[in-house]
Amino acid sequence: MKVRIHVTLKPGVLDPQGKAIEHSLHDLGFSGVESVRQGKYIELELADDNQTKARADLEEMCRKLLANVVIEDYAIELVEEE
Amino acid sequence: MKVRIHVTLKPGVLDPQGKAIEHSLHDLGFSGVESVRQGKYIELELADDNQTKARADLEEMCRKLLANVVIEDYAIELVEEE
Repeated sequence: MKVRIHVTLKPGVLDPQGKAIEHSLHDLGFSGVESVRQGKYIELELADDNQTKARADLEEMCRKLLANVVIEDYAIELVEEE
Repeated sequence: MKVRIHVTLKPGVLDPQGKAIEHSLHDLGFSGVESVRQGKYIELELADDNQTKARADLEEMCRKLLANVVIEDYAIELVEEE
C-alpha cells in the first residue's frame, strides 16, 4: 500500500527556510509571491494492505519519528491502488 | 491564490534521507515499511488570481529555484478557493 505524508510547520511557527525561498523568488523578479512555507513530503510503501492497522501504525510513526508534534502538523493519506 | 508544489527525486536517484528514515522505522519495530522516499513540499500564496500567468510563473520558479531538474521532478497544484 502506498502512503503519502505531509509534515508542515504549525501556523505561527517561524519558517526561516520558507522566508529564504520567498526572498530569493522576489530577487528573481517574482514580486507576486506573498508568502512561502516549506514542509516535508514523505512517500512510504507498506507491505500490509490492512488500512485500519496501517493508519494506527502511521500515526505512531509520525508521532515518534517523522514529525515534531510540538511545532509540526502531519497529514496521512492512504493511496488507493488498482 | 494558494499553490502547492511537490518536489521529489526522480525514480532511480538515490535517496539517502529516505533510506535513513526507513532504517529508523525498522529499528522502531515497523517492519512492514518496504520503502521510503523523502521530498519537499512548498506552499505559496500568490497575489495574482490569473491562473494562466500563475502557472507559467510557477513553472519558471520551479526550474530556476525550487527544483534541481537534473535529479528532481516537480508537481504544481493550484488550489481553488471559495
